[in-house]
Order: sequence, then C-alpha cells, then structure tokens
Amino acid sequence: MTTSRAGQVLDAGLILADAAAVTVPAMREMIDQQPPGMRRLIGYQLGWWDTDGARIEGRQGKTLRPALSLLSCQAVGGVVDQAIPAAVAVELLHNGMLVHDDIIDEDELRRGRPTLWKVYGVPTAILVGDVLFLLPAQVLVRAHAPLCIQGPDRLVSALQISMDGGVTEILLEQRATATFAEVTQVIAAKTSALMAASCALGAVAAGADPDRIDHFHAFGHHLGTAFQIADDLLGIWGEPVRTGKPVHSDLHSRKKSLPVVAALTADHPAGRALAELYADPRPLDAIRAARLIEEAGGRVFARQQADQHVRAARAALADAAPAPSAAAKLTTLLHFGAHRDH
Amino acid sequence: MTTSRAGQVLDAGLILADAAAVTVPAMREMIDQQPPGMRRLIGYQLGWWDTDGARIEGRQGKTLRPALSLLSCQAVGGVVDQAIPAAVAVELLHNGMLVHDDIIDEDELRRGRPTLWKVYGVPTAILVGDVLFLLPAQVLVRAHAPLCIQGPDRLVSALQISMDGGVTEILLEQRATATFAEVTQVIAAKTSALMAASCALGAVAAGADPDRIDHFHAFGHHLGTAFQIADDLLGIWGEPVRTGKPVHSDLHSRKKSLPVVAALTADHPAGRALAELYADPRPLDAIRAARLIEEAGGRVFARQQADQHVRAARAALADAAPAPSAAAKLTTLLHFGAHRDH
Repeated sequence: MTTSRAGQVLDAGLILADAAAVTVPAMREMIDQQPPGMRRLIGYQLGWWDTDGARIEGRQGKTLRPALSLLSCQAVGGVVDQAIPAAVAVELLHNGMLVHDDIIDEDELRRGRPTLWKVYGVPTAILVGDVLFLLPAQVLVRAHAPLCIQGPDRLVSALQISMDGGVTEILLEQRATATFAEVTQVIAAKTSALMAASCALGAVAAGADPDRIDHFHAFGHHLGTAFQIADDLLGIWGEPVRTGKPVHSDLHSRKKSLPVVAALTADHPAGRALAELYADPRPLDAIRAARLIEEAGGRVFARQQADQHVRAARAALADAAPAPSAAAKLTTLLHFGAHRDH
Repeated sequence: MTTSRAGQVLDAGLILADAAAVTVPAMREMIDQQPPGMRRLIGYQLGWWDTDGARIEGRQGKTLRPALSLLSCQAVGGVVDQAIPAAVAVELLHNGMLVHDDIIDEDELRRGRPTLWKVYGVPTAILVGDVLFLLPAQVLVRAHAPLCIQGPDRLVSALQISMDGGVTEILLEQRATATFAEVTQVIAAKTSALMAASCALGAVAAGADPDRIDHFHAFGHHLGTAFQIADDLLGIWGEPVRTGKPVHSDLHSRKKSLPVVAALTADHPAGRALAELYADPRPLDAIRAARLIEEAGGRVFARQQADQHVRAARAALADAAPAPSAAAKLTTLLHFGAHRDH
C-alpha cells in the first residue's frame, strides 16, 4: 500500500479490481458471442467457470495489463471508455500466450487449477490459444480511431517479440550456457513487450502524441521487465500456496531465468556447482539448486536488476507528464509488480 | 487443362506459377526481416530451404489462395499489385494453420518432407504457427485502404470459423457418430473460410462494392468446400507419391471425413460393418475400411457433393460479373481444386 501526494491511500488490489470491473464485462460480451464449445473453453481459461460450466469464485487473472491500458489512457487526459478495447485486447492476448506457454512448458497448474491442455488436451488448447490471439486484432480493428489505426500494428509487433523470445528460450534450455543478452531478450520478450504495448495502447486510445506514447511504452517495458524478474524469483522461491504453481517449478525444467544465469556466470564456487547440477541429466535436486543460486549471488543480483528497472520506469513515467492521480496508481502497480509474492 | 472462350489454353499449374512469381518475393521480403531463428523455421515450413538452411528445389505450397486473391482483384478491374498484401496474408495464414494442424493431427509428413514439429519439436512449432497467424494481420494493417480497413476483420472472422471447426472436429473424433451438419461445418471451417476470405480480400483490395465482394466470398466458399471434399477423397484413395502423405492417413486416425460419414449414415451393410471397424479400438484395417466406404456409396456421394459445390461456385462467380480473362482462370482453378490428385 502506498500513499499518493494527495494523501490518498493506494492499494494495488483495489486498482486492479477497478480495472477488472470495467474490462471483464466487455470481455464477457465478446466471449458470449463465441460458439458454445469455444465459449466454454475460453471461460475455463479465464477462470469464469469450471469444466461443467458452473460459475466459480476462484482466482482469476490479475487484470494488470488492462489496468495499465486504462490508467495510461487516463494519464494523458482520456476517459476510461476510450481504452476499454485496448484493455480487452491485451488481456485476451495475454491469456492466449498463457494457454500456449502452458503447453510449451508442460505446466499442469495455473492459478491453482489444472491448465487448459491438461483438462482438454493439447490439440484443443492450441486452437483456443489461436482464437485468443485473433480476437484482440478483431477488437482493435473495430475500435474508434486512432486506436483502430495504430493499435493492431503495435499489438502484433509486441507479440512477434514475444514469439521470437519464446523460440530463443527453447534454444537456451537445450544449451548448457546462456549469455546475459540472451536472457534479457527472453525476459523482454515474455512479458515486457505486451506490458509496453498495454501502456502504449492506452495512450494511443486517448489520442496522445507519438513522444508521449513512446514514454508510456518505455514505462510498460521497464515495469514488465521488473515484473518478469519478480516472476523468475517466484519460480524459484515463491510459495506454491500463493503462486498457484508447484514449488521450484522453474528449476525442475532447468529454466535459464535471470537468477540462474546470474549464478552460472558469477565465477563463484556455488555457480560452478550449479552448472554441474544443471548439466547432469538426472532429475534435479531443486532445494540444493536454489541454495547454490542464492550463494552465488543470483538472488540478490536479480533483485537489484528489478530495482533498476523500477527506477527506469519511474523516470519514463515522469517524462510522460502524466495526470497525477493516474500516475500515482501506475506507480503503485509498478511497485506491486516488482515486489509481488504471487 | 481448359480452354477459355478466347481460345486461350488455361493450365492450373501455370496460373499458380504466375501467382507464386508475384507472391513469393513479397513473402521473402517479409520473412527476411524476421530474426534469424524464426526466419529459418518459417522458411523450412514454406519449403524454401532444408534444416541446414540450404536452398531446396522441393515441393512448395500450391499458392492457390494467393492466386484466388490476385485473380479476384483483377476480376473486378483491379491491378495485381493492389492484391499482393492480401495474397501474402492468406498464404502465411494458411501455413500457420498447417503448422498447428500437423501438431494436432500428429502428421509427420507434409509435401513429402518431415513436418515442422517433427523436426523442431512441438513447442517451437506452436510458436512458429503463432507468428504465422500474426504476420498476416500486420501485412493487412500496413496495406493501402480499403484493404487495411476491411481486410483484418474479414481475415480474423475467417480464422475464427476455422478454429471453431477444428474444435468441432476434435470432438467428432472422440464420438462414434457425426451428423451431416457437423461434418459440413468442419469442412467449411477447415478450408472454405480461408478460401472465401482469399477471394473476398482480392475484391476488397480493388475497391469492389459490398455485393460484389459477397459474390467472390461465396465463390471462394464453394470452391473451398469442393477442394476440401477432394482432400477428404485423397486422404483415403490418394496416391502417397503424389500427395506427399502416407496412404490411408485419414483412416488410421479415424477421421470423420465426408466419405466416411456418408458411408456410416447410408443404411447399407457395408456402412454398418464400417461402423464396427471404427468403434473397434484396435489399429484399423485401412484397406478394408476404404473398400467398405466405397461399397456403402461414400465415395460416389462425396464426389457428387463436390460437383454440386463446383456448380454453386460457378453461379456465384457469374453473379459477380467478372472480367472474362480473370474469370476463366478462376474457373480453371475451381476445376483443378475439385478434381485434383494431389
């Protein structure tokens, strides 16, 4: 919880709930127009109902990306309604990426529930992901100008970066080592690109000029990078009961996340021991791996990197000369993203 | 080979080669801008080079969909250049669908070469398919008006139909029976939707009025349906050396294609024997299944259905009042699609 200059108490949970309150009904309207089979599958992914179609009160997505779109729009003087198509588009797209990522990573749990492919099979999940990639383009081309003009290209470019990063990540997992530049590219790809687009699209929706759009893009990029580093930390040290994922999940799959690469390249005995552990084809002793990463300084280094991106994000936001109220909320989300525990 | 009214000999192969000559360089320009890893993967899928990056002179795609876009544009008085973005978009999209379909169907051969997932693994192939879904949207939004305005929505709608059909197809394979309506939906989804969009986008690119665009859409829809029925026939009776696919491939996977469903619902002893064979969990005797389908009239019925769609396509084309030269070429492609042997 933070306090704005106006003395207003800001809570990330409330900000995200506000975003959900605006975005989810618009998403529902769109998904309800899908054929029944597809509608049910998408609704399962979004946490709206279980496999029997019964409504559930479980964990839904954080709607962080919609919040970024809506607040970036307001920060340049727009009204919330202008940014709703952007908010819907980025959240659907985010879920499409999650659906395919869960197949790729063979993750069986997401937000404490079985992943889509685990319930409905890989073929169905591929198709659902495809639809969730397509619907955002449709939402944006049907939006008002200038969002319908500038939006689709921005969103597609962001996604391309993500896909390229995904390919790089797969290649890295097949190799013993990874350079810092490679890991940074993966991080930028996986999360930063869509977060950057989420912020930029909000500013676009409000008709902001190109420079200001660029500042919001940069804000989202750094927020996304800090967010992804936090995710990498949670993938090793997160508590399953809060993250909804198995403990040490990233270690078992030998993921080359930032703390891991920092440890591997640290020229420290613990880093070399970790390299041996990672090179050993047998199932990994994840508890030992986590300790070695910490001893080699990987945890602290990743934390520092995240903090550096938080500072860069704040600078970019200041450059955008945002409306104070929206800026305070964006800053709250930035700190939430960079220091979250789930 | 057919002869146009002007006495011009029309050969589908030459028409498709003309389309490739215009479309492939534009595709190359786009794919060359991709990061190296992604560029190589997409080029492998498109039949441009092998796994080592060496150029190959193998079978590439038929570029039927680009030909439909280019000729539909010319048929309403447009010039070829106007439709190139549409041609590139539909061919890339088609390949994205093939990449994901090959994963879904576990097909190991495509155009006589190992499929992308077979060479590079499922995760990589999912991501490559995703990129091939995204690039078309980017091509279209960067095109000239009216293609950039009307194009993306048309393309996305076509794809959505395809995805929904894919989900229906997966459900059908898990069930013993399928209705005619269901099979028809799958056929429309798998092929007709994108063929319809290919034709419509060509007409859109030339600035045709909505009625005329609709006629081209209908032409592509019926052409696509006839094409898919021909594909269903090839999936059972096609010669592997020509199709580049294993013999009887659709039967081994118990696909509910049109000839199969026609036989199953024919109230004929051979149809009932086929139903028993399909319900038996052991590996299928495909030679016997093919004979039973033929005896129950499934082959003849499918052929008749294809011919009916050929007639409907010709009628739709006539309604569009097309330029004679382009119309003759479109008609040649129609007959090629409906009666092809590969």
